[in-house]
Amino acid sequence: MNTIGHLINGEICTDAARTQDVFNPATGQVIRQVALASVETVEQAISYAQAAFPAWRNTPPIKRARVMFRFKELLEANADKICQLIGEEHGKISHDAAGELQRGIENVEYACGVPELLKGEHSKNVGPNIDSWSEFQPLGVVAGITPFNFPAMVPLWMFPMAIACGNCFILKPSERDPSSTLLIAQLLKEAGLPDGVMNVVNGDKVTVDVLLSDERIKAVSFVGSTPIAEYIYATANANGKRCQALGGAKNHAIVMPDADMDNAVNQLLGAAFGSSGERCMALSVAVAVGDVAGDALVEKMTKAMAGLKVGAYTDSINDFGPVITAQHRDKVVGYINHAQEQGATIVVDGRNPEVEGYSDGFFVGGTLIDNVTTDMVSYKEEIFGPVLQVIRVQTMQEAMDLIDAHEYGNGTCIFTRDGEAARYFSDNIQVGMVGINVPLPVPVAYHSFGGWKRSLFGDLHAYGPDAVRFYSKRKTVTQRWPSVGVREGAEFSMPTMK
Amino acid sequence: MNTIGHLINGEICTDAARTQDVFNPATGQVIRQVALASVETVEQAISYAQAAFPAWRNTPPIKRARVMFRFKELLEANADKICQLIGEEHGKISHDAAGELQRGIENVEYACGVPELLKGEHSKNVGPNIDSWSEFQPLGVVAGITPFNFPAMVPLWMFPMAIACGNCFILKPSERDPSSTLLIAQLLKEAGLPDGVMNVVNGDKVTVDVLLSDERIKAVSFVGSTPIAEYIYATANANGKRCQALGGAKNHAIVMPDADMDNAVNQLLGAAFGSSGERCMALSVAVAVGDVAGDALVEKMTKAMAGLKVGAYTDSINDFGPVITAQHRDKVVGYINHAQEQGATIVVDGRNPEVEGYSDGFFVGGTLIDNVTTDMVSYKEEIFGPVLQVIRVQTMQEAMDLIDAHEYGNGTCIFTRDGEAARYFSDNIQVGMVGINVPLPVPVAYHSFGGWKRSLFGDLHAYGPDAVRFYSKRKTVTQRWPSVGVREGAEFSMPTMK
Amino acid sequence: MNTIGHLINGEICTDAARTQDVFNPATGQVIRQVALASVETVEQAISYAQAAFPAWRNTPPIKRARVMFRFKELLEANADKICQLIGEEHGKISHDAAGELQRGIENVEYACGVPELLKGEHSKNVGPNIDSWSEFQPLGVVAGITPFNFPAMVPLWMFPMAIACGNCFILKPSERDPSSTLLIAQLLKEAGLPDGVMNVVNGDKVTVDVLLSDERIKAVSFVGSTPIAEYIYATANANGKRCQALGGAKNHAIVMPDADMDNAVNQLLGAAFGSSGERCMALSVAVAVGDVAGDALVEKMTKAMAGLKVGAYTDSINDFGPVITAQHRDKVVGYINHAQEQGATIVVDGRNPEVEGYSDGFFVGGTLIDNVTTDMVSYKEEIFGPVLQVIRVQTMQEAMDLIDAHEYGNGTCIFTRDGEAARYFSDNIQVGMVGINVPLPVPVAYHSFGGWKRSLFGDLHAYGPDAVRFYSKRKTVTQRWPSVGVREGAEFSMPTMK
Amino acid sequence: MNTIGHLINGEICTDAARTQDVFNPATGQVIRQVALASVETVEQAISYAQAAFPAWRNTPPIKRARVMFRFKELLEANADKICQLIGEEHGKISHDAAGELQRGIENVEYACGVPELLKGEHSKNVGPNIDSWSEFQPLGVVAGITPFNFPAMVPLWMFPMAIACGNCFILKPSERDPSSTLLIAQLLKEAGLPDGVMNVVNGDKVTVDVLLSDERIKAVSFVGSTPIAEYIYATANANGKRCQALGGAKNHAIVMPDADMDNAVNQLLGAAFGSSGERCMALSVAVAVGDVAGDALVEKMTKAMAGLKVGAYTDSINDFGPVITAQHRDKVVGYINHAQEQGATIVVDGRNPEVEGYSDGFFVGGTLIDNVTTDMVSYKEEIFGPVLQVIRVQTMQEAMDLIDAHEYGNGTCIFTRDGEAARYFSDNIQVGMVGINVPLPVPVAYHSFGGWKRSLFGDLHAYGPDAVRFYSKRKTVTQRWPSVGVREGAEFSMPTMK
Repeated sequence: MNTIGHLINGEICTDAARTQDVFNPATGQVIRQVALASVETVEQAISYAQAAFPAWRNTPPIKRARVMFRFKELLEANADKICQLIGEEHGKISHDAAGELQRGIENVEYACGVPELLKGEHSKNVGPNIDSWSEFQPLGVVAGITPFNFPAMVPLWMFPMAIACGNCFILKPSERDPSSTLLIAQLLKEAGLPDGVMNVVNGDKVTVDVLLSDERIKAVSFVGSTPIAEYIYATANANGKRCQALGGAKNHAIVMPDADMDNAVNQLLGAAFGSSGERCMALSVAVAVGDVAGDALVEKMTKAMAGLKVGAYTDSINDFGPVITAQHRDKVVGYINHAQEQGATIVVDGRNPEVEGYSDGFFVGGTLIDNVTTDMVSYKEEIFGPVLQVIRVQTMQEAMDLIDAHEYGNGTCIFTRDGEAARYFSDNIQVGMVGINVPLPVPVAYHSFGGWKRSLFGDLHAYGPDAVRFYSKRKTVTQRWPSVGVREGAEFSMPTMK
Repeated sequence: MNTIGHLINGEICTDAARTQDVFNPATGQVIRQVALASVETVEQAISYAQAAFPAWRNTPPIKRARVMFRFKELLEANADKICQLIGEEHGKISHDAAGELQRGIENVEYACGVPELLKGEHSKNVGPNIDSWSEFQPLGVVAGITPFNFPAMVPLWMFPMAIACGNCFILKPSERDPSSTLLIAQLLKEAGLPDGVMNVVNGDKVTVDVLLSDERIKAVSFVGSTPIAEYIYATANANGKRCQALGGAKNHAIVMPDADMDNAVNQLLGAAFGSSGERCMALSVAVAVGDVAGDALVEKMTKAMAGLKVGAYTDSINDFGPVITAQHRDKVVGYINHAQEQGATIVVDGRNPEVEGYSDGFFVGGTLIDNVTTDMVSYKEEIFGPVLQVIRVQTMQEAMDLIDAHEYGNGTCIFTRDGEAARYFSDNIQVGMVGINVPLPVPVAYHSFGGWKRSLFGDLHAYGPDAVRFYSKRKTVTQRWPSVGVREGAEFSMPTMK
Repeated sequence: MNTIGHLINGEICTDAARTQDVFNPATGQVIRQVALASVETVEQAISYAQAAFPAWRNTPPIKRARVMFRFKELLEANADKICQLIGEEHGKISHDAAGELQRGIENVEYACGVPELLKGEHSKNVGPNIDSWSEFQPLGVVAGITPFNFPAMVPLWMFPMAIACGNCFILKPSERDPSSTLLIAQLLKEAGLPDGVMNVVNGDKVTVDVLLSDERIKAVSFVGSTPIAEYIYATANANGKRCQALGGAKNHAIVMPDADMDNAVNQLLGAAFGSSGERCMALSVAVAVGDVAGDALVEKMTKAMAGLKVGAYTDSINDFGPVITAQHRDKVVGYINHAQEQGATIVVDGRNPEVEGYSDGFFVGGTLIDNVTTDMVSYKEEIFGPVLQVIRVQTMQEAMDLIDAHEYGNGTCIFTRDGEAARYFSDNIQVGMVGINVPLPVPVAYHSFGGWKRSLFGDLHAYGPDAVRFYSKRKTVTQRWPSVGVREGAEFSMPTMK
Repeated sequence: MNTIGHLINGEICTDAARTQDVFNPATGQVIRQVALASVETVEQAISYAQAAFPAWRNTPPIKRARVMFRFKELLEANADKICQLIGEEHGKISHDAAGELQRGIENVEYACGVPELLKGEHSKNVGPNIDSWSEFQPLGVVAGITPFNFPAMVPLWMFPMAIACGNCFILKPSERDPSSTLLIAQLLKEAGLPDGVMNVVNGDKVTVDVLLSDERIKAVSFVGSTPIAEYIYATANANGKRCQALGGAKNHAIVMPDADMDNAVNQLLGAAFGSSGERCMALSVAVAVGDVAGDALVEKMTKAMAGLKVGAYTDSINDFGPVITAQHRDKVVGYINHAQEQGATIVVDGRNPEVEGYSDGFFVGGTLIDNVTTDMVSYKEEIFGPVLQVIRVQTMQEAMDLIDAHEYGNGTCIFTRDGEAARYFSDNIQVGMVGINVPLPVPVAYHSFGGWKRSLFGDLHAYGPDAVRFYSKRKTVTQRWPSVGVREGAEFSMPTMK
């Protein structure tokens, strides 16, 4: 059986010592092994990255950008292969994998503009004949730790901009579905990236802990669950690194009485069940304002869900695939059980889906739960499965209070036609990414991605303009050229620009 | 004797329970007591700030800016009073105190431009008829913890921009010289700031620990020594806050053979001894390249130092005043002793200065030490006193290597006429603020202040553009208005902007 | 009788030769004379400005900004005096004059941020060891030509930013009401502006033609009517100057069936009749969509107009005052007559208003005309009087087509609650300034003001960010410092950043 | 013989009526005919562009950018073919043509970032619950008129950004060498650009005059000689279009006594003679400061010029090729004759170069003229040939005064090691593009290109950030959503954001 290795200094290599199973979640079968790096392997990767840094740092930004231009072309040319690997190990249907990859490519496109994005600010005459400007220099070697649910997209949020800014990169992808990530990283070499600038190390907590403690790592970007995000953030910072750590979510959609209900249902269907709900931006709670809206929503949604197709990635007619592991399937089913026990109504039950020919796959069908309340476990925690819960409230303010009371603040959405309602909602809601009739308000690549509250730790968001600032350090230069013959008096006071 | 209280919700108040002496460092006498806040007092201040937040957040930025316009006028009108208080408690000579205050006011001027600085990015048609934009919303209640050496300037780096961005503020100034800080804060009320938006709590570690742990505090800005900065940074982050923590420094000037030596000496004189060297940007090490430059530097510097006047703040003819405490004086003298013991040459000895009429003051005279090496304690640690150490090297590269090997990376400077040398230096040196013939390269208020290496923890620098980002959180809104009658198909794939 | 002079090189002076009457339009009496500059006087003003330029150009931007900080304080302190002069010569009621002045002051506030606004872009390593940056340098002597209807605000759109950018300025205000403008300009000296940087020359076409032809004038900003704007624009450009020329308007409001009609009526009342409609952003046409909306609008508007008070500026209970001249009054009345003759319905007739005690004043009362069609003279041309015309259409698209067909494209507005309607309107309408439930969508000072079609000639808009670009010229510096000993090969090909 | 046609609405077509000869300047032979468009043909092109506009305007910017991504790939893939065509019709040697094309491609790369570049500014709460933002909308149909000397690069300065901003484009390339331009334009279709968005019309003044007068053309970009630039600028503006018109140049290099003379000579060699000096950024005057520098410069330059190779584009060993026409060759030779007659020293004489096998080609050899003075015709006018003139002065100030006195202000350069000299020069010189030891300071594509004085007419420079502003019009939207039930009072005063 194939063992997935690391990409270090431009070469694929493996650690013999430890490996872990990689499954096809649609069949439930182990299809590959992934090498788990030792401390030494991780340190070696860092050493190569460190060695590659001086030359890469001094490469003009436009030349670094041109690697990204070619990388974009190669990602497009290899899209089918990448999507195939995503499907095999993650279970995502091909149209969804293609969407994920496209979103990732958009970050490469943005990184192509790095000469513009790295411009510093130049001030003439901050004092008489004194000029000052800022430069945004790379940090050195930086690391990314990414989750299973977007093996292509989330890594592409990080390393293209980090590298375009002049850094060298160590990526630790999810050990559940590392193959597509590795293939993507290999394309960089073909795109002209010098060896050592980009490295992929597969592994587990051993790898993570080296990345968090080795002092040559200057920054860590993380996407995963909130408890791990907190650990990563606290540890990296305590070790003197900069860190941004993105965690969990519970994304609510408010459905207003004036919403176009058919449209809302259509939007919710994809936003709740796409990728089996294993998205940090999945819309997992619908808050209906008023009983009329609530009843209509549940009725129309029930009807729409009758057409949902769950199955293997190999058939593109399917709407979504299995969840990532058997354990995770059991956890999702457990949340549904909990909700039922705590009094909610299971309107559409996806607990035992029939998927012909895939009886050992880790499938959960689309599930709709009505009459959910805020004290239920299924409401308080992130399910990360194809489960849409409906809460009914009487006013928009009540809906907003409920969203603001939740520990997460990643994404949210309102369905309405009313300009005032939309503005009041987007202004006041304590959530970082807000949709107005847009159920998955993932910012485009030239804006930045980030939740509020316990969904993100750090002050700069992921990708977009904030990523440029995160992956660079500001240097401010102040310059005066003294005239020969001018002898200036010593200045004991705090110098000011008077 | 007068007890200095807190400013909470627009009122001055004190805690009876605990106080600490405030000295006049020129006379060595206790002149006031400062109240040390209890846990309850700090929590009360936070409560008032929290209560003031909703209205302040909704106040249009231009109206918040206008409070800053009036605040600037009041700071200018009260400058003499503020400088007098700085002199009494810190010992700074009036011209230096005026310089400090002016630098602080420049930050208020910058905050007057907050409507411009808070502009988000608006994108039309991120997809068909979908728009997206970013908003920079205030965090809520944020805190600042500031050092004794700039009781006016460093607080003014923080709260004007934090408040202009729509936050409420809790400031814990240094307990050594809190009076000028308190007066400044009181002027905000006169400038029209609503009660509760700005609060000052005097105190010690008790206060700091509440600010670091109370979950209502969303961000902490700190300026002080590196060990404390590290503690603050790790603790604040572990508690889910954003944090920027500025620590110590060891700022080197390279004196090149082609430097205009008279000019360099004049510049160094002020940069090394101004404010008794108690500045994180003080130039404490001169690195002479080549013996000719080294000899000339020491000779001219010795001659120039003969005219240095150390004394009380009351006489503006003095160049600098005492250090902050008797303990600190002893520490500074200890470093000089160490250097001497480790083989350096004490060229000008300031260990027992005569300051007529102030025999009990905490004075150290201007001190010049030659032949310093990198293994000496006086070189490794920050002295924070009026001591200039000279290191001699043979090449510019040697000088740069030495600077890069030091744990701190706050400021640095090169004296030269040569464009190539200046560019090579400013490009490569691992220091955040670089001067070219500018010995104290403190960025102006519309740029940002921050060192590298162990001089700053965090990803955003202090004041200037970075402060706007630090004191605000990004919200990204994505908006589509659906047409009635248009029924859109459900979308299970990751939505892209294809 | 008082003769209003010029402000040249810091001194008030007059030309004996030619003068013109200045009226109080409420009484119809001549109250002052204004000097009309000779060619020599204008040239002298330019000479002084030219002489003041080198030193002002080299004054650090923050120091130039501080003149603006003080200027703002002085404008606020002298507001009553300024508003009194506006009232006397223009006829504007005090609350309206205060609003105008405040809008002007906002531009001074924006100019206080000029150190931020003048920042150039700095790029490290545009090629190997080659850096490049942009500087925005002042143009030299620039001129402004301003209209009677905003004697304080429109000049303040121009000269504060022009001066803050380092230029010297020649202002030719309207000869109808020059006193408030002159007073404002005089305050600059008190604010610390060096003599010669700001100059005011009163005059007529003689003055204008010198400003358009003298080669020392580098740029001309103009606000007035479209025919003059075209002349100014073509002439200035043909003479090698940069120019922005703002002309006339015909601003339509669409009233949708779902609009909050009471609110719309209240908004329209002020937007149509405030300042007697003598505003280039006055809302002079209401386009009602559907007969229900049309009938309700006319009925409610008629009722609301019953309370309108027209009278002299001395009584702040008045809503608006006279128009500027007897000729202009006759012209406005002529348009009403035309409309009537061409078949429109005069619902409220302001042609012969009774204003007790002011029988010789140039008054026109609030006038409402229904059933206006696009072929009427009163519709095609700008009336610039207190006349609101109602057009009825059946669909929103019809309303938009009509707006797009008009030659002017300054401002427009829609009254609706519907997000989709608002977005479709603001996206597609061929007008430069768009309001959504905002009847006078004058951009705030930190955005820029400009119409489309024949309402503005030039590529940069007035005030705000565009003004910084208009009043400065870009210089791009590319820098490489060659290493001694490095001999680089000659390069015959077009150099690229490969 | 082949007739070069137009590209209109995606199809190549020709006008039968009028054609003009296209030469191979190396052989002096006519190799093709170019069609000269009739008025009707130009109008038809505009009609197609107009028809394509609505859909292209509504295409999301990222999709427009993706056409540019593909266009870049196609330009790179077709580089050899393009360079061959440039060589045939312009005479440029292949390495120089490749450089030109690469510079052009860099503008395509910049246009790929258009989603970032088109971002408007979004302001929350410009007043209570009022938001305001700017949008940068395309103009409609815009035109470019480009010169013979850069048939690939200068068109690529214009249309990629214009098109990426959402405009449709009509290009009139030089009729001397239109083939490479046409090929480039054809690649856009292959890149996915809809028909009608990009059109090429070959022609003469007939074409130009339609573009300047047809009211459907909203903007004109021009690069050529100053007299034509002035005509274009005045005419386009008088017809209500926006216009930027770039004209002639006389670029001086100051050679300071401390310059690295070998490096300076090497740099000057390419900058003066590359592309036969037919570049608006060619360095045609060297100003030597001091006789030592002057003598060394002339001596070393003479020696270096001995190796210069002039010849046909087919041999890449050649340094440069012929000039564009026989008439132009005679004009260049005339300037050399003039200089000689007026007393200058012809140090190296290129008037009758031997180019084996190309006796009918339009060749001028590299020419060096010493002791040139400012009253000579060869100094006052632009030669646009391979002629370097040396002027000797005694001080740097004298050199700068001379540059500032010249009517052109396109590019300039100083050779020095001295930081002070470089800063004084770059700050004060009245030239738009300044090099410090960079002889052709052409800004990179992410900065903007533009001269001062009579080298550019307009306020916005070519390509880079300024081009985005030039090819878009600002719309400012102000939005308030009224609460139902809230009845707001009418506002007669000028609304302010108090």
